[in-house]
Formats: sequence, structure tokens, C-alpha cells
Amino acid sequence: MNEKALYDLTYGLFLVGTKADGKENACITNTVIQLASSPARVSLSCINGNLTPELIKKSGRFTVTILDETAPFSLFESFGLKHGRDTDKFAGYNVQYDEAGMPYIKNSACAVLSCRVLSYEDLGSHTLFIAEVTDAEKLSFVRPVTYAQYHTEIKPQKKQEQKEKKQIGWRCEICGYVYEDNDLPDDFVCPWCGHPKDDFEPLYED
Amino acid sequence: MNEKALYDLTYGLFLVGTKADGKENACITNTVIQLASSPARVSLSCINGNLTPELIKKSGRFTVTILDETAPFSLFESFGLKHGRDTDKFAGYNVQYDEAGMPYIKNSACAVLSCRVLSYEDLGSHTLFIAEVTDAEKLSFVRPVTYAQYHTEIKPQKKQEQKEKKQIGWRCEICGYVYEDNDLPDDFVCPWCGHPKDDFEPLYED
Repeated sequence: MNEKALYDLTYGLFLVGTKADGKENACITNTVIQLASSPARVSLSCINGNLTPELIKKSGRFTVTILDETAPFSLFESFGLKHGRDTDKFAGYNVQYDEAGMPYIKNSACAVLSCRVLSYEDLGSHTLFIAEVTDAEKLSFVRPVTYAQYHTEIKPQKKQEQKEKKQIGWRCEICGYVYEDNDLPDDFVCPWCGHPKDDFEPLYED
Repeated sequence: MNEKALYDLTYGLFLVGTKADGKENACITNTVIQLASSPARVSLSCINGNLTPELIKKSGRFTVTILDETAPFSLFESFGLKHGRDTDKFAGYNVQYDEAGMPYIKNSACAVLSCRVLSYEDLGSHTLFIAEVTDAEKLSFVRPVTYAQYHTEIKPQKKQEQKEKKQIGWRCEICGYVYEDNDLPDDFVCPWCGHPKDDFEPLYED
């Protein structure tokens, strides 16, 4: 069994933005799916504990920026590997706002959807939001980026030179969590995102 | 609101194959999603009334061939626009079988998954299958094809010359259902797949 074959199950990559209580935040996800077409409805699954789902529950609104093939790794670093509670993830980006006042960006974006939450359900590790698409706009005709492309073309590949560096721990490739010990147990599960040891990469000293 | 912006919500395109009671069949879908990683689990949503979900309920097994960017329109015609009850969809293809005896093809495929059904739920128009991935194999390193690419690059675009031909009805772009009248009501819903008028294209005489 080659677990990497599952990377070929294609998903898009999206920037989900929201704003509540004066705080705006966004996160990277691959979990936006269209459920119905008239009226257009989507679902979104978010890891519990993160700031974005907490704000979406308050605002009842979110944007989905559909990222395209030009998306640089720095965009995934800004929105996917940092934490909104500590930082302003939008710093340095030209933030746009939809009619409901929800933030999004036009960088490396081929479309943006405005969504209004109809219901949500706590599924343990994740919250599933069901939302109506209240607006949808094409931003470019560049192809949407896929999760497979992120793994093979966007994410920096492990460098040979790192083998000469001292390993200082492991980092979760999904959410950025750092395990500060070189001995990562086989049954270890990421406390932030619930992903297993297979999704961790060695972390080397700078 | 530009409904076509929703086409950018990226999905892969998959050939789901199964076999029961000596009959093998397959269909095209964009609804395979990984749910969990250890053990690897996926979900698959199938339109009720079609042969594939009926056979999957009997066999408890299916394959997912992950199609790549080289997939020709003819493959989508063979498996997506024909009906397994009338035809042998695999005719003309070099059928492969996984360890459980379930059929798949290696044409334009970058990976294949073998799946064992754990449970299924009738959701009205669709049945949702939850399955364990019992095997996974990489078949090529060609990029997986996306639903967006199918719309923009694979599906034949409407030809100018067709404007000179006589229209004889409408065809559902999703499942191939033909409405044999030029006056398609605005609230029409495809009786085979449940998609609305927006997903129908004019059908012209040959």
C-alpha cells in the first residue's frame, strides 16, 4: 500500500476569510465542497480550536478565495502555518471586502465566493458548516491549484544539505505544530490538527 | 453572481468500478473524498437509481481510479454518459482487477485505490458510502485531472457551426439525459441526476 497515492485524490486549496468582533482572520483549507446548485450551497470543515471557525460562528459569514496555480509557498506560510490569535495574517496583503464586510484577497485567486452560514455541526475534531453562496465572482482564468500540486510543485522539497544539519524535532506538514524531540512515537497524533506521524517532517536547526 | 465561479471549486475526477453477481460496471464521479488517514478512509457519493451504487451495496467493494490530465473526452463518454444496464462500459478497455476482484483501468490513471465499504446511508437523491482503503497504488506521475479542467479543456466546446443546425432538444451535461423538446422550463430538474436547467446544453440534429 502506497499512502502517497491518496495525495492524488484531488482537492482545491482555498483561503477562508471571516471577521467578527473587529478581528479578521483567514485560514487555508482543502475542505470546501459544493453540496447543491439551486440555491448554491457549500460545506466547509474546520479544525476545532482554531480562530477561524470561532469567528465564523459569531459572524455567520465567510469568504472562500479559490487559489490558482500561481499561489506561492509564502501565501501558504502566511495563512496556513501561522496562528491568527498571535498575528494579523492579512498584514502585507491588499485586503478586499465582500458585501457582507468579510475579508478576502485577490492574490493568486481565480474566484471568490461569499457564503452565509445556514447551520453548523460539531463533529469532534472538526466543525462542519453548511452555507448558502450569496455571491460568486470570477477573478481570473488561471487554473485553480490542486492539493496534489501543492505537495509536488509548491511546497519546498526536502534539501539534501539538511542531512548534514542537526535534527531538533519534527514539524507537522499540515498545521505547522512542532514536536521538540527527535523521538516521535509511531502512534503520535498532532494535538493541533489530528494528523498522524506520517504527516510530520524532520525539523533541523537553522 | 457568476455561477461559473463555482466550477473553480476543485475536485478530481474518478472512475469508480465494482462487480457483483457477475456484472461489472463503473461510473465517473467527482465525489471521492478522504475522511481519515489512519486507517485511511474515504467517502463516495453516488446518484441513486444508477447501477454502480446498486452493485457496490452487493459487493461491498469498489475501486477508485484517479484520472490524470491525459484523460480524453472518449473516456468520459464511455463511463459517464452511457448506462451500465444497457452496455458493457469496459468494452474496448484493458480491464485490470484488484485483490478483491474489482475492476479498474490503467488508461489515463495516476493512482488506484481499493476500497471496502464500512457503511452506507441513503440521503435521498444519493447514497453516501464510507469505506476503508485496503490498498493504494501509484500508476504514474502525471498530474490528476480536475473538474475545472474537464469543463475548460476536455469537454468539447460548443461549435459555431451548430448554430446553423436545427435544435432538437436539450442534454444534461452531467449525466447525458436527453429532454426531447426545445422548450425546457426554467425550473426543470434532471430526472436522472437532479441537476438544474443551467447544466443542460442545446442538442442539435446530427
